[in-house]
Amino acid sequence: MEKKVEKDNKGLTVGKKKDFSTWFSEIVQKAELGDLRYNVKGFLVFQPWSVLCMEKMYKHFEKVLQKKGHEPYFFPTLIPESNLKKEASHVQGFTPEVFWVTQGGDDVFEERLALRPTSETAFYQMFNLWIRSYNDLPFKAYQRANVFRYETKATRPFLRSREFHWIEAHCAHATEGDAMKQVEEDMETTKEVMHDIFGLPFIFFERPAWDRFHGAHRTFAADALNPDGRVVQQPSTHLLKQDFAKVFDVKFKDKDGKDKFVWITCYGPAMSRIFASVVSVHGDDKGLRFPWEIAPRHVAIVPIDNSKELVDKAKELKEKIGDFAEVVIDSSNKTPGEKFNHWEMKGIPVRIDLGKKELKEKKLCVFRRDLNKKEFIAEKELMSYLEKVKNECGKNLLKEADQIFKDRIVNVSNVREMKKAVGAGNIVRCEFCSIDRDGERCAEVIEKEVGVKVRGTNLKKEAVKGKCVVCGKKAGNVVYVARDY
Amino acid sequence: MEKKVEKDNKGLTVGKKKDFSTWFSEIVQKAELGDLRYNVKGFLVFQPWSVLCMEKMYKHFEKVLQKKGHEPYFFPTLIPESNLKKEASHVQGFTPEVFWVTQGGDDVFEERLALRPTSETAFYQMFNLWIRSYNDLPFKAYQRANVFRYETKATRPFLRSREFHWIEAHCAHATEGDAMKQVEEDMETTKEVMHDIFGLPFIFFERPAWDRFHGAHRTFAADALNPDGRVVQQPSTHLLKQDFAKVFDVKFKDKDGKDKFVWITCYGPAMSRIFASVVSVHGDDKGLRFPWEIAPRHVAIVPIDNSKELVDKAKELKEKIGDFAEVVIDSSNKTPGEKFNHWEMKGIPVRIDLGKKELKEKKLCVFRRDLNKKEFIAEKELMSYLEKVKNECGKNLLKEADQIFKDRIVNVSNVREMKKAVGAGNIVRCEFCSIDRDGERCAEVIEKEVGVKVRGTNLKKEAVKGKCVVCGKKAGNVVYVARDY
Repeated sequence: MEKKVEKDNKGLTVGKKKDFSTWFSEIVQKAELGDLRYNVKGFLVFQPWSVLCMEKMYKHFEKVLQKKGHEPYFFPTLIPESNLKKEASHVQGFTPEVFWVTQGGDDVFEERLALRPTSETAFYQMFNLWIRSYNDLPFKAYQRANVFRYETKATRPFLRSREFHWIEAHCAHATEGDAMKQVEEDMETTKEVMHDIFGLPFIFFERPAWDRFHGAHRTFAADALNPDGRVVQQPSTHLLKQDFAKVFDVKFKDKDGKDKFVWITCYGPAMSRIFASVVSVHGDDKGLRFPWEIAPRHVAIVPIDNSKELVDKAKELKEKIGDFAEVVIDSSNKTPGEKFNHWEMKGIPVRIDLGKKELKEKKLCVFRRDLNKKEFIAEKELMSYLEKVKNECGKNLLKEADQIFKDRIVNVSNVREMKKAVGAGNIVRCEFCSIDRDGERCAEVIEKEVGVKVRGTNLKKEAVKGKCVVCGKKAGNVVYVARDY
Repeated sequence: MEKKVEKDNKGLTVGKKKDFSTWFSEIVQKAELGDLRYNVKGFLVFQPWSVLCMEKMYKHFEKVLQKKGHEPYFFPTLIPESNLKKEASHVQGFTPEVFWVTQGGDDVFEERLALRPTSETAFYQMFNLWIRSYNDLPFKAYQRANVFRYETKATRPFLRSREFHWIEAHCAHATEGDAMKQVEEDMETTKEVMHDIFGLPFIFFERPAWDRFHGAHRTFAADALNPDGRVVQQPSTHLLKQDFAKVFDVKFKDKDGKDKFVWITCYGPAMSRIFASVVSVHGDDKGLRFPWEIAPRHVAIVPIDNSKELVDKAKELKEKIGDFAEVVIDSSNKTPGEKFNHWEMKGIPVRIDLGKKELKEKKLCVFRRDLNKKEFIAEKELMSYLEKVKNECGKNLLKEADQIFKDRIVNVSNVREMKKAVGAGNIVRCEFCSIDRDGERCAEVIEKEVGVKVRGTNLKKEAVKGKCVVCGKKAGNVVYVARDY
């Protein structure tokens, strides 16, 4: 399966903690995750190693969504401009970022068509046709799709590209209470999949009033943390209330016989961006690391030479492992050392180094990437060893990540302390006047003086005792602030 | 999972054989496969029942492709116009069908960007960067993607839409012989997946010189047959030779130390169109039918009433079936009769009708859709019954389809007979002067007089004895002609 010859067998030239930005650029290239040389600015070619992982990520998310009653759709990529214009704050927010299709063959269109930046205005016009009565609610839909944003900010591979791969879930409910329960379910789904399976820690914040999704009444977003102390916004879920329902006239006949507007929520986990966090959080100075459940492949068998004896043995082991794990045999022309480095860079959970000595002794030299630990096992123990790594490696990565995340949340009580803590790469917790519109001025002060954004409040209401770190007025909330990209 | 109330519980109003066109339109709507009311012409909203099936189809194709050494990529949806223009016959063929992106936000682009109609010109410029030596060959890549064609022909849901969902595989080889072997492998893959798993009969034809893919030297395409006697072009595979390699300068250093151009092949199975054939070939006058392996869901449990006793029993059975099959419990407010019709329309392979009498007797009333057969089994036999249906239903559908397909290939020896046989809905086999450029005039005569196209020659060289059915000259090939859309 893995036949390509590495063009550059050298490892990473910098440590992840020392120079994260260079580390990330290098790993994208050297582990062959994505190629930036495609000739449209801000677009990336996703290479096999990232696609295989992202496909598994899709599978986990879709499984949980379907279990919770969401049904899959494929909507058209194109949305008429008039749809986007229907909801005022939505169009205002997204229009500067839209790619426009204006021609088909030699025809110039009367109305421009947007490459979907997100699909609220596509889904809800169909909700209008599909939803009739309370029996149809909750209506829980999603699609796996790629979306397009003509970003003006600098793009970064996986983290922020002009085309990215995501899931967007759109739901309609009979009451605001049901809608809020959906928002909570979305947050729980994020935890079940992104934390428990992918091993990524995050905090779900309710975003301040000035930082909501365009068209949303309440926005909740999961911030993950990169090694450089910057947060990355991962899945967000939004209470859109009835605004979109009103402009697209999505009504249902309730049990009391009355026609009512539905309450809408939407939720968007972006696989390509979550992949960026998987790389950034789990990787180390040798390369990638993956939880078993989303590893592109599980086991690499490396014959020390390409003699028939060793290659045949590799095939025999692959056969034996069968469906339990996805196995790659590396019979390329590289030296053993190059092969070892290659598979450490690629983050394969288990490597089996196959030499003649081990063959004779019926032993195997195995290397597990989560612990970077090499050991010898009896050949007959192989399956139980793989079972053990399968069970442990995700847990080990998660534990390590959780600890780092926890250690980097720091309390401060004034702007000077905030500067220092942020400079050391932390997420900072402080008391703050208000996340309603009233607080926006204080947030601007923080952004200007410290270069960080107010990410919002924790979901668990936290006790407030003192004063706003900026204006000194009585604090209304505990907020978190952090650098982003 | 299935909570929606049917808006129209009436079944299909026409028979599939009697009026296929109406039957197909009705089933798309009544089985909730796709919604044509989206407000961009020629675009379709794919609804859950088609998406679930297509996702399984993707899984089967990707599994086989990966097993045969193809690796997955995600390429950008946008291709610069200058890329498309590089290969003369390619641009000529595709330009009239391209949707053009000309603006991003308020910026007007200097160069137009195509929504990919197909991705040769995206992949091969990257092949230029990735392929260096014979060690890199064969280079076998594919992507799962949606593509866009500004069709001027009438669109039909799934069969021909302006956006469709496919896989495109692109491979580079060291020699023409290796490339032709790839073409053969692609045809074998098509058989393994589309025939053996999806149950669809087809013939792979080598297309005549005047009907090749834009830019190809040889084109091989699988024609499936609809009940109205029209053929549908399913996956095609193309020998592009070295034309694209030359314009994109894709060279490799061969074992002899010389730089050579690679030989390129491409292959494209379109899930949305294959889905159209699954619907058309397997469906009957009650609705859809599916082979188990691609059925959106496998079992529907229908409690005769929504009493706690029966619903609890349904849940218990679902639990018992576990991972063996995907189970839906229909506790909607419909009458039992409506529910039965609904699940027959949806083509669920097994329905379990749950009444109090059966509950008491520890029996189950089961209905299998492949044979439209209802029977009573002991509850304890459920798993072996499901096992049996799983093993048999795909085979039954395939056998039925193969027989119909075989019976509709008819030999003719003149144009009069051809007219008659085509009129009766057959694929017609006849002797013909030539599928090189020389034969194009005779093909035009057939198209004008009979309204059919020459589909090409069978892969197995067939013995030629007589004269061309049109011009009377010595025949060079046995060809097949058929109506298409």
